[in-house]
Amino acid sequence: MSGLPVSKTLRRLIRFTVLESKNGPSFLIRKFSSDRLLACKDNNNFQQGNKRNGAPKRIFSGIQPTGVLHLGNYFGAIRQWVLSQDENSLFSIVDLHSITLPQDPKALKENILKMSASLLACGIDHEKCILFQQSKVPQHAELSWVLSCLTTLPRLGHLPQFKEKSSKMTDIPLGLYIYPVLQSADILLYKSTHVPVGEDQLQHIQLAQHLARVFNNKYGPIFPRPSAVVYDESASRLKSLRNPDKKMSKSDPDAKSRIEITDDPDVVVEKCKKAMTDFTSAVTYDLAARPAVSNLIILHSLCTGLDAKRICHENQHIDTAQYKLVVAEAVNEFLQPIRRRYLELLKDPGYLISILDKGSERATDIAQETWREVKNAVGLTVSS
Amino acid sequence: MSGLPVSKTLRRLIRFTVLESKNGPSFLIRKFSSDRLLACKDNNNFQQGNKRNGAPKRIFSGIQPTGVLHLGNYFGAIRQWVLSQDENSLFSIVDLHSITLPQDPKALKENILKMSASLLACGIDHEKCILFQQSKVPQHAELSWVLSCLTTLPRLGHLPQFKEKSSKMTDIPLGLYIYPVLQSADILLYKSTHVPVGEDQLQHIQLAQHLARVFNNKYGPIFPRPSAVVYDESASRLKSLRNPDKKMSKSDPDAKSRIEITDDPDVVVEKCKKAMTDFTSAVTYDLAARPAVSNLIILHSLCTGLDAKRICHENQHIDTAQYKLVVAEAVNEFLQPIRRRYLELLKDPGYLISILDKGSERATDIAQETWREVKNAVGLTVSS
Repeated sequence: MSGLPVSKTLRRLIRFTVLESKNGPSFLIRKFSSDRLLACKDNNNFQQGNKRNGAPKRIFSGIQPTGVLHLGNYFGAIRQWVLSQDENSLFSIVDLHSITLPQDPKALKENILKMSASLLACGIDHEKCILFQQSKVPQHAELSWVLSCLTTLPRLGHLPQFKEKSSKMTDIPLGLYIYPVLQSADILLYKSTHVPVGEDQLQHIQLAQHLARVFNNKYGPIFPRPSAVVYDESASRLKSLRNPDKKMSKSDPDAKSRIEITDDPDVVVEKCKKAMTDFTSAVTYDLAARPAVSNLIILHSLCTGLDAKRICHENQHIDTAQYKLVVAEAVNEFLQPIRRRYLELLKDPGYLISILDKGSERATDIAQETWREVKNAVGLTVSS
Repeated sequence: MSGLPVSKTLRRLIRFTVLESKNGPSFLIRKFSSDRLLACKDNNNFQQGNKRNGAPKRIFSGIQPTGVLHLGNYFGAIRQWVLSQDENSLFSIVDLHSITLPQDPKALKENILKMSASLLACGIDHEKCILFQQSKVPQHAELSWVLSCLTTLPRLGHLPQFKEKSSKMTDIPLGLYIYPVLQSADILLYKSTHVPVGEDQLQHIQLAQHLARVFNNKYGPIFPRPSAVVYDESASRLKSLRNPDKKMSKSDPDAKSRIEITDDPDVVVEKCKKAMTDFTSAVTYDLAARPAVSNLIILHSLCTGLDAKRICHENQHIDTAQYKLVVAEAVNEFLQPIRRRYLELLKDPGYLISILDKGSERATDIAQETWREVKNAVGLTVSS
């Protein structure tokens, strides 16, 4: 169950941007190439954080159990999880977050298994890192309650994700309003120092930073300051194959807009054939003028590790219709071992459950210790 | 550690009013005299609830760890707990609720111990009922999260307690907004059927009823419908000794406004002497025209079990200044065994902690089972 081999070329392609919030001592943007996220020696703020709190480096990230991963998920987040995983990283299937919107219980159960199989098939190594199911660790909800008492209604109401998600609703579910507090608990519970997220989650990391600061000021220094780690999205964020203005997404009703990691080879060929292009037949990369074709080139580049310039050069004698078959072939070659492993894993739910159980036990060991400290600091623990 | 002996007269004085919300099949008001709350055979709705859910009778009530009880707490709530306690009743020191407003951690820890000692001294028998500390049972926060996803922002915003408490605040803490959801979790976690509360909490019980219904409709019948049990307040709600327009309360800055169960005999005499009366010297009971004197008569009646008519007759030859000494004597006689027991208990924090630990374990046994059912119904439990 070791991670997939990652080519050196692929490693070089990976760019991380470490963004610090405006509340930090400076607004740092760092890019670095590494197969270990935490090799970022020049992240002063992280080092400061370490000195101040004596906190060991720890990565936390979560993904909702949406079922099978698509390549947008993979290249946008999971690939970085795989590259950064070590004994200091926790990756969580955040099922408590998924119920903030209505879920069919049977589908949710299946999707938790499918997500576990997807993550393992993509190279998450449950012996290297801690892979776990959020709802199996009670301290997430418990710490979330304590943090609820340290934040205010206006602060949550101003979060852009809430405004966006609730804009079309009349009866807004409470869960949709308060889930950023649970996210903060997810992060702080493990004294996380680095939190890989999409750019749309930056304000939520700022809330976690704020809550860590408020808690520490009020009750003593328990939480290190978590830093958001945002991938360089321009390089890796895949767009919908049907509309390059939208990102590749599970929620797109058009299944042809995305490639799932379990898609059969002929499904991949079909989806690539139906991918949007434009009225120019040459294969050239221009993200602004030719977003659809450039998206195919990015997909090709991500699957092979070749850069865009070389891809365009190698495909200068064919038109975009023929090029789509080249892309499909590259995708299929890339996906083949992942797909095979996924199908194998899904045949054995008992094995998947045992991995989630073991991971959740390891997560609970850390969570219990933090929660013990929190309860004592807040005054909930009585002793004689 | 058995409950205090309760005289037949005192038992007869106790009146319960079972109020059903407007959402129920009817708006029932029942009064009955009993030393067992659940002898209320004529509560149709409760019987219906039993038939529908097969739920056993279960009483849940909670009190915040405010420290030492005063006589307003005792006669308003705790006495009824003592009278109704059996193997089906759970009484909780709800420390997670107390942090919705700022708390000093050291004081909070002390107050948890003081509240435990107070409850035991007043006759709560930890072997008869389950007495426990809320924060020791993680499922309260966990179920609260699930219920958060089933309620809406407008519903919480309309609760009168929230409007009242937040009216003078600018930055309203989130905890103050969402604590009724935690209260619902407190109740539903034990599949409670009867919830003794003050009248000001009625709308919160309606929220718990609503959430039980929403959950059951969506995920299947897990929760029985909890009924609010409201004491007949006119008979037992003590008013401030300094201002009969206000109820006796811990939060009153004037300590002379209340009698705490640990007050020394001469402190009780002093507080009674300083109690407000009026310009008429005779001892007569008239709640509307002579609220302060009537409050003293109620206090006297509650401590002795004598009715107001007899008290007035027996004290017709003295004036209110002399009568205050009669009341003080009755209060001191009533408090003497409670105060002694309280001081004994507080000397041994280890014993108090062991009682809370054992109670919390017993509560957890029930809570775990409900949470297991809830997780399975919602789709958070995967099985092979």
